[in-house]
Amino acid sequence: MKFELTKELLTRIEDAVDAQDTQFFQDEVCPLHSADIAEIIDEVNLEQAQFIYRQLDKERAAEVLVELEEDVRDEFLKSLSDDEIAFQVERMDSDDAADFIQDLPEDRKDEILSNLEDVEHSSDIASLLSYDEDTAGGLMAKEFICANINWTVGEALANLREQAQEINYVYTIYTVDDHNRLMGTLSLKTFLYSDNDTKIKDLYADDPISVNAATDDREVARIMEKYDLVAIPVVNHSNVLIGRITIDDVVDVIKEDAERERQLATGVSEKIESRDSIWVITRARLPWLLIGMMGGVFGALVIGRFEGQLDRFPELAFFIPLIAAMGGNIGVQSSSLIVQGLANNTLKFDSTLQKILKEVGVALVNGAVLSSLIFIYNFAFGENYSLCFTVSVALFAVIILAGILGSLVPLLLHRYKIDPALATGPFITTLNDILGLLLYFMIGYAFY
Amino acid sequence: MKFELTKELLTRIEDAVDAQDTQFFQDEVCPLHSADIAEIIDEVNLEQAQFIYRQLDKERAAEVLVELEEDVRDEFLKSLSDDEIAFQVERMDSDDAADFIQDLPEDRKDEILSNLEDVEHSSDIASLLSYDEDTAGGLMAKEFICANINWTVGEALANLREQAQEINYVYTIYTVDDHNRLMGTLSLKTFLYSDNDTKIKDLYADDPISVNAATDDREVARIMEKYDLVAIPVVNHSNVLIGRITIDDVVDVIKEDAERERQLATGVSEKIESRDSIWVITRARLPWLLIGMMGGVFGALVIGRFEGQLDRFPELAFFIPLIAAMGGNIGVQSSSLIVQGLANNTLKFDSTLQKILKEVGVALVNGAVLSSLIFIYNFAFGENYSLCFTVSVALFAVIILAGILGSLVPLLLHRYKIDPALATGPFITTLNDILGLLLYFMIGYAFY
Repeated sequence: MKFELTKELLTRIEDAVDAQDTQFFQDEVCPLHSADIAEIIDEVNLEQAQFIYRQLDKERAAEVLVELEEDVRDEFLKSLSDDEIAFQVERMDSDDAADFIQDLPEDRKDEILSNLEDVEHSSDIASLLSYDEDTAGGLMAKEFICANINWTVGEALANLREQAQEINYVYTIYTVDDHNRLMGTLSLKTFLYSDNDTKIKDLYADDPISVNAATDDREVARIMEKYDLVAIPVVNHSNVLIGRITIDDVVDVIKEDAERERQLATGVSEKIESRDSIWVITRARLPWLLIGMMGGVFGALVIGRFEGQLDRFPELAFFIPLIAAMGGNIGVQSSSLIVQGLANNTLKFDSTLQKILKEVGVALVNGAVLSSLIFIYNFAFGENYSLCFTVSVALFAVIILAGILGSLVPLLLHRYKIDPALATGPFITTLNDILGLLLYFMIGYAFY
Repeated sequence: MKFELTKELLTRIEDAVDAQDTQFFQDEVCPLHSADIAEIIDEVNLEQAQFIYRQLDKERAAEVLVELEEDVRDEFLKSLSDDEIAFQVERMDSDDAADFIQDLPEDRKDEILSNLEDVEHSSDIASLLSYDEDTAGGLMAKEFICANINWTVGEALANLREQAQEINYVYTIYTVDDHNRLMGTLSLKTFLYSDNDTKIKDLYADDPISVNAATDDREVARIMEKYDLVAIPVVNHSNVLIGRITIDDVVDVIKEDAERERQLATGVSEKIESRDSIWVITRARLPWLLIGMMGGVFGALVIGRFEGQLDRFPELAFFIPLIAAMGGNIGVQSSSLIVQGLANNTLKFDSTLQKILKEVGVALVNGAVLSSLIFIYNFAFGENYSLCFTVSVALFAVIILAGILGSLVPLLLHRYKIDPALATGPFITTLNDILGLLLYFMIGYAFY
């Protein structure tokens, strides 16, 4: 079974929609995995999506809705009645359901939740909606399997059979005390191969790695990665078990985080994709370009200050792009390394001074190599000594300065609880451009 | 249980090593999770690591070795004898074992594998070592649970009890026919709640999403993400089940992939961390800086060509940094968006022309806004008309050109099976710097 949505298949599907060919959908589309059907709906227009949606049986429809891309789903939701949404939400896991209705207006959310037949499910979803999206509470589901440590294996088995009906996939059995406080975990294996009269107390492993509902989602990802967990229990401040997070939700957090850092490094301010509208893409890119342009204007002011010098020695202008570009490149390299180190927590035993000194070390090596090369180049092409020295000394100075700023700025932002990734990309490039030019002309002033 | 490796704890541990205080390790370190012990060993020197390693009981030691960081582990491996390594490898899952000895010289690998008591384990590891690291075969483990579809539940239960002893965590039961061909999956839940006489044939779901051993690891990640899988079966070309991949290994693939793209975008050519040595960091960064510097030299040549013009109108020099910076910024933004779209496969239904036209659309909007702003600025500060027009028209042209190149270059690389991420970062910035300068002076030539 290998599904691939080709251009041909998409055309056939669109034709079938136009022809209202329900038979085609029963034969070809409905048997597909819900993630594949969602992929199809992501690609067609709203009207076509509604037709396809109506061909699905009700159980399937809920699964497909959960798999849709966020923007497609939010668009689609607008076309559904509260009753219809409530009907689907009833069939979803609590975490999927909460994500699903999250972006609806408050009154619609309340209306939908009050329409649910399963009151417990409704209150589970309501409680999930109360957590911040970027915390463990915002990621967790209320569906999990737990056993009281005072039960016997036999009692637990009967009880779990009950619980398991609501759950598609059993990851781990959590063990709790009489107050529902998390005590440990029980592997299915141990559970299955134990005598019916054995007490859970004597079987469970009391090493639960858990997170608090308020834990940051990236911290959850870090913990699950470190300990290779497929699921992690979530507790409240009294250590009462209130939910569990599965690895598939955490994979999304990891991906989004990496994506976000890359966007900031390349000068994009919000989550966009190449297939978003021109307007959305422009809105995300223009602010960084404005920063870059303001940098360019400052650069013009700096050069303007040295106009007299430039009049007499116009060859100084030749190397303006080189100095500006190198400052920018070095700054992005070093800030990106620092941001990565902060994110992976590999820098915690170094003081700020140690980190900066390391970067200065790298800059000294790079600076020595590059300044020598450009000196040889300029000398070989018969430029005057003043220019040879100015360019090489300025390049060396710019490389050191850009290295220091590139590491210092993200470290400072981090210390003041501002996202250090903001310092990568256009911001640091622009800063280094201007300072590089200033250095260049000041050194030029000294040598001429 | 919340472990955090603080500077204080690390100092206490190092002191205990110096004092050969074995009691401290029995009380404080050995009870920790193996991932935590590995984190400690990652931070100390080789001699200290060896002392800590010797304090661990044998079962623990294998777990800790698997959790070490790759460079620390490879260093540590050199200090172990073949017998010692074989002893530990015996205790590891086949995929961890293969990763563990992967980087050793061929003769040591052979020696270790021939030293293993468990011949089947040894041949499992040898077969895993034969796969390319970046394929499903390189990721998979040979440990999985499978049931023949012709068995009854009772037969399967007895058989699985046997199989499960070797496996720490049961994800899914795979069902196979008499030729070990993958037929489907069986959820533990269905299995547990079925009658002993029921045939597996009548229970299993025949929807196995599987990958081939030769499938690219990023494709494996994409499939597991799309279908929210915690484990995926791996088959050979005859659809015979040969292994399974678990999500924790795929999380590493996803992270490394994101990291690699970010490094290329910020001008770093190999996997480095801020705590690597100055030499390693320099080696990874210098090549990109050389590209940047060559760009600067070309820039100098371009400006040199227009020296006469610059002599007469030195104010043209003021806006060199602005033009160069904007070309670079736009180029990085658009190439990064295209690379992201190619990686996420969201662009497959657009033709190259459509993608470029989209980017031109964005560039037109950005260009109009930014060119107008800079015109107003220059006009307000009383610059002459020629300069006002030159800067604005050149900026507009550069923004369009940089947008086109920024999308075209990664698309071309992708078409010729070269990693499009190479086109982000310093390469595209440098290219756009030079072309931007050329445009600027040519337009200046026209207006003056």
